[in-house]
Amino acid sequence: MDLDDVRVTGKQVDLTDFPTDANGGLDKASAKRQTAELTAELAQLQERFWANGRQRLLVVLQATDTGGKDGTIRNVFGPLNPLGVRTVGFKVPTSTELAHDYLWRVHSQVPANGEIVVFNRSHYEDVLIVRVHDLVPQKRWKRRYRHIVEFENMLVDEGTTIVKCFLHISKAEQKRRLQERLDNPEKRWKFSPGDLEERSFWDDYQQAYADMLSKTATDRAPWHIVPADNKWYRDLVVATILRDTLASLDLTLPDDPPNLDSIVIGD
Amino acid sequence: MDLDDVRVTGKQVDLTDFPTDANGGLDKASAKRQTAELTAELAQLQERFWANGRQRLLVVLQATDTGGKDGTIRNVFGPLNPLGVRTVGFKVPTSTELAHDYLWRVHSQVPANGEIVVFNRSHYEDVLIVRVHDLVPQKRWKRRYRHIVEFENMLVDEGTTIVKCFLHISKAEQKRRLQERLDNPEKRWKFSPGDLEERSFWDDYQQAYADMLSKTATDRAPWHIVPADNKWYRDLVVATILRDTLASLDLTLPDDPPNLDSIVIGD
Repeated sequence: MDLDDVRVTGKQVDLTDFPTDANGGLDKASAKRQTAELTAELAQLQERFWANGRQRLLVVLQATDTGGKDGTIRNVFGPLNPLGVRTVGFKVPTSTELAHDYLWRVHSQVPANGEIVVFNRSHYEDVLIVRVHDLVPQKRWKRRYRHIVEFENMLVDEGTTIVKCFLHISKAEQKRRLQERLDNPEKRWKFSPGDLEERSFWDDYQQAYADMLSKTATDRAPWHIVPADNKWYRDLVVATILRDTLASLDLTLPDDPPNLDSIVIGD
Repeated sequence: MDLDDVRVTGKQVDLTDFPTDANGGLDKASAKRQTAELTAELAQLQERFWANGRQRLLVVLQATDTGGKDGTIRNVFGPLNPLGVRTVGFKVPTSTELAHDYLWRVHSQVPANGEIVVFNRSHYEDVLIVRVHDLVPQKRWKRRYRHIVEFENMLVDEGTTIVKCFLHISKAEQKRRLQERLDNPEKRWKFSPGDLEERSFWDDYQQAYADMLSKTATDRAPWHIVPADNKWYRDLVVATILRDTLASLDLTLPDDPPNLDSIVIGD
């Protein structure tokens, strides 16, 4: 898989250039087999990452509603050791969160040494839903692109690796998934009438995503536009991005404690 | 008092241009009288600030050892209502703090709406003691000036007012204060042999302060170089800065709840 097809850095993004239904020429069964191999490899890499204890990894997941953030987390991060992996979901801000700057609740949750943290939604909501629904004046949210780039720059300078994935689905696929939530008794709890209201802002959201991708994809913290109509291909792409990222890091084990060879463990 | 004499923004600072022993032509008694009047005014302004509930104020205090941060906090902030005023002391970082970027512990403590927060030391230690004692490589701490400017910029954009005060004392005054700690049984607990070690780095610290002031004093978050050999003049300067800052803010009270005039309170 050539990740250059999905990685964007510092260029104007037109989302219609990025297919939502790509499958890499694979069928579902072979994609799932490859993902299973990758997650086994990921589990080993993550053990080294934890043992190494000098790196931090932040994974940012953004998507339109029904885009598959929850499923991606379950399928790609589920097989890893929860000891060193933490998922943070950012919901409607609490009153305490709203009494601070919008990066306050986000910064408090960034990974520590040895940790992989997955953001299920993130600070990017503050240039997405906040923009689409005019929750703060345009003058104010427009300044946030720079804040965010500088914030992520600081994290990278100080030792955090950042992986950002936008799960990209078509409007027709969203319709199928919303209908599935209505039809499947196990999924009805996930349906909210607000989902239809949000769907009516589809074009505004696509524009907000395009601007987010254009203004905040940097060399040091690129975005990946993940084709996500096929869940099995989406998982394979995210697992590949994660494997390549972990494999590129220096994950040497800490030095042995001194004189281990001379230790004799008594009966 | 003309605060333009002590305020710096975006220019190269030579600390020898700033007298440590200025007294504004005042004697101790009249300075203390003025400070008492100011702190009474401050207490009223702070009540409005709290009631208004839409502003945030961050006060950053930095000084060389014995520079008077603790005394300034007691004398200027002590008279305010602790309900809306919080002091945060940043000590040697804990292992949890060190496992994150250096701004992590700082960001978590910034003021919420209606709050005045005083930082007793701050993120600036990460370009001061960290620099003087080579705790991280030069390449790394040099990038922090930009991080800090952008971080403070974001806070200001999102509604925080930032007041930064550097308490400026002479080397001779530090000697007197250290000797006083040795001689006064009530102050001996404050003396640490490490203070003499730090004193031997006096020139390195002065250079680090000058660079900090030159690189991070912006129009939106200026530094004040407070003459601090005379404690009573130092307090007067800081109280004046704070009064002028609060008086410049829009501290209108929230709207009355509806129909108050028609309310009759039963027996």
